[in-house]
Amino acid sequence: MRCDVLAIGTELLLGQIVDTNSAWIGEQLALAGVDCLLQVKVGDNQARIAQAISEALSRADAVVCCGGLGPTQDDITREAIALVMGVELETRPELVEVIRGLFAGRGREMPANNLRQAQVPVGAAVIPQTRGTAPGLICPIGDRVVYALPGVPHEMKEMLARAVLPDLVARAGESVTIRSRVLRTWGLGESAVAERLAPRLGALDSAGNPTIAFLASGVEGIKVRITARGTGADPAGAAESLLAGEEAEVRALLGDLVFGVDDQTMEAAVGASLLAAGKTLAVAESLTGGMIGARLTAIPGASDWFRGGVVSYASEVKWKVLGVTEGPVVTGSAAVEMAGGARRLLGADVGLAVTGVAGPTEQEGQPVGTVWVGLAGLGEHRAKRLQLGGDREHIRQMTVISAGDILRRALLAGG
Amino acid sequence: MRCDVLAIGTELLLGQIVDTNSAWIGEQLALAGVDCLLQVKVGDNQARIAQAISEALSRADAVVCCGGLGPTQDDITREAIALVMGVELETRPELVEVIRGLFAGRGREMPANNLRQAQVPVGAAVIPQTRGTAPGLICPIGDRVVYALPGVPHEMKEMLARAVLPDLVARAGESVTIRSRVLRTWGLGESAVAERLAPRLGALDSAGNPTIAFLASGVEGIKVRITARGTGADPAGAAESLLAGEEAEVRALLGDLVFGVDDQTMEAAVGASLLAAGKTLAVAESLTGGMIGARLTAIPGASDWFRGGVVSYASEVKWKVLGVTEGPVVTGSAAVEMAGGARRLLGADVGLAVTGVAGPTEQEGQPVGTVWVGLAGLGEHRAKRLQLGGDREHIRQMTVISAGDILRRALLAGG
Repeated sequence: MRCDVLAIGTELLLGQIVDTNSAWIGEQLALAGVDCLLQVKVGDNQARIAQAISEALSRADAVVCCGGLGPTQDDITREAIALVMGVELETRPELVEVIRGLFAGRGREMPANNLRQAQVPVGAAVIPQTRGTAPGLICPIGDRVVYALPGVPHEMKEMLARAVLPDLVARAGESVTIRSRVLRTWGLGESAVAERLAPRLGALDSAGNPTIAFLASGVEGIKVRITARGTGADPAGAAESLLAGEEAEVRALLGDLVFGVDDQTMEAAVGASLLAAGKTLAVAESLTGGMIGARLTAIPGASDWFRGGVVSYASEVKWKVLGVTEGPVVTGSAAVEMAGGARRLLGADVGLAVTGVAGPTEQEGQPVGTVWVGLAGLGEHRAKRLQLGGDREHIRQMTVISAGDILRRALLAGG
Repeated sequence: MRCDVLAIGTELLLGQIVDTNSAWIGEQLALAGVDCLLQVKVGDNQARIAQAISEALSRADAVVCCGGLGPTQDDITREAIALVMGVELETRPELVEVIRGLFAGRGREMPANNLRQAQVPVGAAVIPQTRGTAPGLICPIGDRVVYALPGVPHEMKEMLARAVLPDLVARAGESVTIRSRVLRTWGLGESAVAERLAPRLGALDSAGNPTIAFLASGVEGIKVRITARGTGADPAGAAESLLAGEEAEVRALLGDLVFGVDDQTMEAAVGASLLAAGKTLAVAESLTGGMIGARLTAIPGASDWFRGGVVSYASEVKWKVLGVTEGPVVTGSAAVEMAGGARRLLGADVGLAVTGVAGPTEQEGQPVGTVWVGLAGLGEHRAKRLQLGGDREHIRQMTVISAGDILRRALLAGG
C-alpha cells in the first residue's frame, strides 16, 4: 500500500508558512505500515492541483491532499478533485445545516461563502468535522482513492487519525490498529540507552511487533518509542495490551532514567514530584537568567509548589542578596550557598541553584560549559558539576533540564 | 523563469525532520522574481530521485535539489543527476585536496567515504564550499539546469545566495539584484501600521519598485519588509540606494514604533538602549516567572547592563523580599513597588516589574490577561496597565515584549 501526500497552498511555496503537515502525515503513515514515497507542495491553481493529483495516482494507491478546503475563492481543492474524478460538485443539504449551525452556535450569520464548504464531488464520502467548518472528503477513483483534509494542523490530525488511517488500513485488507508511546529519558546518551535495552532489543528482533525506536532529541533527552500493532477481533485492545507489556519490560531496564511519557516535560515531572512530596521550591539562577523559573511557571498550578527565584546574574547579587561568601562564584560551594540563600530568602522547603559559564568567553579561569548545580533542603546540601558543550544557548538549555533532573532524582530518593 | 525545488531524504518523508529548506528557497526565489510552482520531497532512492528531477525539468527551467550530498552510501544525489544528464561521475583532484585539507585542519585523517564528495557529473560546474565538506553543483542539461545543494540549512542558504540566485538571474538574461530589509515594530496592529504608511503605499503603487509588505508575527510584532530591485551597471548599488531611500521615508512615518531591524529582537533593542544610556537594570517578575531575565541574558555581554532579578511568584515574596505593601498584587502600585524593590535590592539604576493574571483562572477578581508593568528609576515611578488576550503562554509572551517596549521607550525619552 502506497499513499503519497499533496500539500496545497501558494503560501507554502512562498515560504510564508512552513509545511509541517506532510512530515506529520508521513510519520503516521509509516507507523501504520503504509509507504509514503513522494510528498508534493503545489499552489492554489486548479490545473496544477489536478495534475499533481493525477500524477500521484499514477504512482500510488492513495493520496492525501491537505489544504484548500476553506470558504474563499482560492480554496479550490474540491474543484480540482472533481476534475480528476470527471464529476460535478453537488451541494449536500445536511452539510449546509451543520455549517449554518456552527455559526448560529457562535451567534453569527453564516457568510454565503461558507456554502462552498458544503459542496462535494458526486460520489465522494464526507468526513464530518469535529473542530472547524471544512468537512473532509474520501473520493474513490477506480481502485484508488483521494483524501482531502483541511490544512489547519489540529483539524487535519484529528481527521487523519479518525477516518483516513482506518480507511487506508481497511483498503489494505487488514484490521490493524497501531499504538505508540514515548518514554522520555535523561542522563545517558543514545548508545548507552540502547545498551541498557539490549536484552529487549534482542528479544524483539524475531517478532517485529512491538518495535522499539530511539530518537535523540537534544535538550529534551533521548526518547524511546514503543510501537505495537494489534490485529484480530479487538485490534485496539490487542495493541494496548502489547504496548503495556513492553512498557513494563522497558521501564524495568531503564529505571529512573525515565522522567516522562509522551508530551510530559522535565518541568512537569519536577512539579509532580514536588507536589507528591508536599514541598515548595525556590530557585537561584545565574547563567540561565530566569529560564528555570520561566519553564516551571509555564505549568498551570505551579503556585502550589513554586515560591519564586532570584536571578543573580551579577556576582554582587549572589554575595549581597543570597549571602554567598565573597569570592569565586563558579564553584560547588557557591552553588550550594545560592540554593540555601534562595530557600531562606523566599521561604521554601527546597532550594535549587545553577552557576556557570555560558560563554562566549571563560570566567574565573573556568572554561565555557562549566556549570555547578546546587541543592539545599533535601538531606545533605550538595552540588554537582557538569561540563556541557555547544554554544551559549545550548549550554543554558542543557543546564535547565540537567538541574531539573537532579532535583527530580533527589525528590525520588526521598530527599 | 520557473525554478522548482526537490528536497531529498527519506528522513523528510518519515517526518523525522521537517523540511524547512524548501520554504526558505521558495521565498528567496519569489524575492528574485523567479516562479516556484512545485516543491517535491523524495527519499534516498536513485530511480525516484532521477525521475523527480526529469519530471521537474519537463515543467520548469531549473530545479534546485537539496540534500543527499553527504559522504555515505545513501547520499546519491550526484549519481541521480548524472543519470538524468546521461553522463558518468568523475573525481576532481582539486576537490579531493580541499576536502583532505579540511580534515587535516581539524587534525583528522579524511575517511575514504568523503572521496565521494569529490565526485562530479562530467560537464557540471562546482560551487565551492565555505562552511562544510560537500561542494554544490551546477549541472546544465540542454537549455535547463539542475542545482545541487547540501541539506544542512546554513550551508544551503549561503550557497543559494552566493551562486544559485546570481546564476538563475543571469540565465534570465537580466542583471538584477534584490535587497530587502525588515523594520520590526511594536505597539500597533497590522491595519494601523498600514494606515500610518498609507502615504507611502499610495506613492509606491505606480512604480512597483521598491515594494512594502506587512507580516504580522504575533508576539514579535508587525514586521514591515521593504524590497528593492536594482538593475543597470551596478545593480547591487542601485538596490541598496533604493532601499535606503525608502527606509528613511518609512521610518519618518513610523517613528519610535520601530524597535529593530532584520533579526534584531526587542531584548537586543532594550540592551542597546541601556548601554547607550549607561544604566543597569534589575527586574521583578511575577506571571512571567523569569522569562524577561531569560531573554535579556540570551544576549552575550548582558552583564554590562543586567544585574539580575527576583521572580516573585508567591505574593509573600512580593511583600517580604521586594517590600511591596501587603494586599492585592495585581495593581499598578504593586508593580511600581516591585520595580522599586528589585532596583534597591539588586543595586541597579532602573527597575522593571510585571504582575498580572496569566490564567487559567482569574485572580483577586481581575480577569485573565490583566497585566501591570511598573518602572522605577527613570524619572517618575509609573505603571501601565495591559489587557492581553490568548492563552497562558501567549499572555506571558506578550507581557515580556510589551514590558521591553515600555522600558525601551522610557529610555528613548531620556528617562
